[in-house]
Amino acid sequence: MENAADYAKRRVTLNDQVLSQADLTMKRFFALDHDTYGDGALPRKMKELIGLAASTVLRCNDCISYHLIESVEQGATDKEITEALGIALVVGGSITIPHLRHAMAFLSTIERPDTMSDHR
Amino acid sequence: MENAADYAKRRVTLNDQVLSQADLTMKRFFALDHDTYGDGALPRKMKELIGLAASTVLRCNDCISYHLIESVEQGATDKEITEALGIALVVGGSITIPHLRHAMAFLSTIERPDTMSDHR
Amino acid sequence: MENAADYAKRRVTLNDQVLSQADLTMKRFFALDHDTYGDGALPRKMKELIGLAASTVLRCNDCISYHLIESVEQGATDKEITEALGIALVVGGSITIPHLRHAMAFLSTIERPDTMSDHR
Amino acid sequence: MENAADYAKRRVTLNDQVLSQADLTMKRFFALDHDTYGDGALPRKMKELIGLAASTVLRCNDCISYHLIESVEQGATDKEITEALGIALVVGGSITIPHLRHAMAFLSTIERPDTMSDHR
Amino acid sequence: MENAADYAKRRVTLNDQVLSQADLTMKRFFALDHDTYGDGALPRKMKELIGLAASTVLRCNDCISYHLIESVEQGATDKEITEALGIALVVGGSITIPHLRHAMAFLSTIERPDTMSDHR
Amino acid sequence: MENAADYAKRRVTLNDQVLSQADLTMKRFFALDHDTYGDGALPRKMKELIGLAASTVLRCNDCISYHLIESVEQGATDKEITEALGIALVVGGSITIPHLRHAMAFLSTIERPDTMSDHR
Repeated sequence: MENAADYAKRRVTLNDQVLSQADLTMKRFFALDHDTYGDGALPRKMKELIGLAASTVLRCNDCISYHLIESVEQGATDKEITEALGIALVVGGSITIPHLRHAMAFLSTIERPDTMSDHR
Repeated sequence: MENAADYAKRRVTLNDQVLSQADLTMKRFFALDHDTYGDGALPRKMKELIGLAASTVLRCNDCISYHLIESVEQGATDKEITEALGIALVVGGSITIPHLRHAMAFLSTIERPDTMSDHR
Repeated sequence: MENAADYAKRRVTLNDQVLSQADLTMKRFFALDHDTYGDGALPRKMKELIGLAASTVLRCNDCISYHLIESVEQGATDKEITEALGIALVVGGSITIPHLRHAMAFLSTIERPDTMSDHR
Repeated sequence: MENAADYAKRRVTLNDQVLSQADLTMKRFFALDHDTYGDGALPRKMKELIGLAASTVLRCNDCISYHLIESVEQGATDKEITEALGIALVVGGSITIPHLRHAMAFLSTIERPDTMSDHR
Repeated sequence: MENAADYAKRRVTLNDQVLSQADLTMKRFFALDHDTYGDGALPRKMKELIGLAASTVLRCNDCISYHLIESVEQGATDKEITEALGIALVVGGSITIPHLRHAMAFLSTIERPDTMSDHR
Repeated sequence: MENAADYAKRRVTLNDQVLSQADLTMKRFFALDHDTYGDGALPRKMKELIGLAASTVLRCNDCISYHLIESVEQGATDKEITEALGIALVVGGSITIPHLRHAMAFLSTIERPDTMSDHR
């Protein structure tokens, strides 16, 4: 399985390729997608966990990987991530299990600052 | 459109009918589904908002109605609900718009205690 | 909720309307769809139960209604139908619950010959 | 079934309700959605037919209704609409048939200018 | 393509990783998922074929692989498996064809006892 | 990523394997699928772009690859393909972005006749 660092690199390369060929519709969508997860009434961490659960029920591994990285960066603990994935499992059914496997394996490749290890 | 009170009644009646014919698999699933949204590392309000967004990207009006009622009961504000639905819209695309319409119309039929009106 | 007799009538009327406007692609698809559930290595009853479970995980109430009628006509018992729906629930998750409610309510409107009542 | 005129009215009312509660994310999405179907390398009629087929495979009746109205307004003939729906049927399978029924019944309620009747 | 033996090994490893991080929700879901396919009113073979068809219309290769292995173990013949997949193809449309390709290629890697070869 | 030439070869090999084990249902479906994209009221190019957008909202990379090859063969320009993909992005949401990345990367591997380069 691709680890978090390799995924992040590949994502940037492919997004660059999309945007180099994109029309205005795509460019506006990408900008909107980015802005959706900024702070608001809900803190960013919660938005990322919502994005993670939505990606899991829709069964998109690349989207799961992205929101896992962002969730960890926003300070989500392993327990919080596990609970968000658990809700997705119950909502989306056993068909999401392969994506749960991906999520758990991918999560273990995301580097965290040493100071965070106490909170996990 | 069915309002929140009528929906809640119909839901109980139909669930009773399902459970009267259910086998052990169904009964265990219903129990698990119920327990998934209890307090944990994530507060119940956040779990309901995750359930709401997951239901919206999967485009299930009955599920949206249920999680809207529960979200309000757990103290979610209109702004928080709108943000959770906004994430679902961007993740799930324009195909979710009819469900956004349902959500906003249904939300306006949920009764809130007077004391909550200040927080909205 | 529309009962089985009314559903069957509406289905025929609407199919006639589709076929009166259909091109060759649609006509061939409808013929293929019909022939798929004939006897083969699997008995018809099993094919209808497979169609029922597939319709449930894809969350299509009209398709569920159709396969429920056909399953009963092929001799499926309530217990067999419940088990097929239970598998669909576990595979497809809580998002299928509104369709389970539909299935159980609709099933109770399907008339069965008196002689079958012993087998249920 | 709701006819085209009633659908169009309900859609505006509900969209107004959504937009009155919408945050910036939703407003930007609605604007983008609108602009996506303007003339470009592909003529508007073709974009509406693409939107129609996409709505059909995703099985969204409200979205089908909308794109049917727009397709007719952009001059799509019944034969062109039928072919777009036929592709959706083959791509999306028998699970789309109830939506095909909706599409054909709804299409017959859309008013066309007299001068167009020759071309159908 | 990963063959059946390698898939089975990878599945166990990844499930172990999931369960080592799982909360109670996940553990209960995994137990329920396992128990759903035990003998009941429907024989296990039929339950596995239902799981196979449901996995195919939902387009989950890992789930297809799992139910193919179990179907063969429960004595399903190639003809029965092909019919279950054929129903899934008609229900789910051409979008399932890549998963049909996966299923047929994977099926050919599943080892069967010599004594079964007469029945295929 | 698999380039267009390798994909085309693998597709033929796997289809041969499916058809060697196929029952009548599958064979009829494959024939119907093929015939659906022939010239009609809509030109083949438009049908392929509809197939491309439908494949994108349903998030099937193999289907996207196939329709990209066919679209280019029918004379679709990069701008037309980008617009069809842009509609799919807005209809299907951010969950389609990984498939957009696939589409754009795969498109760059499709060989075009020299004489076409002026039109792109």
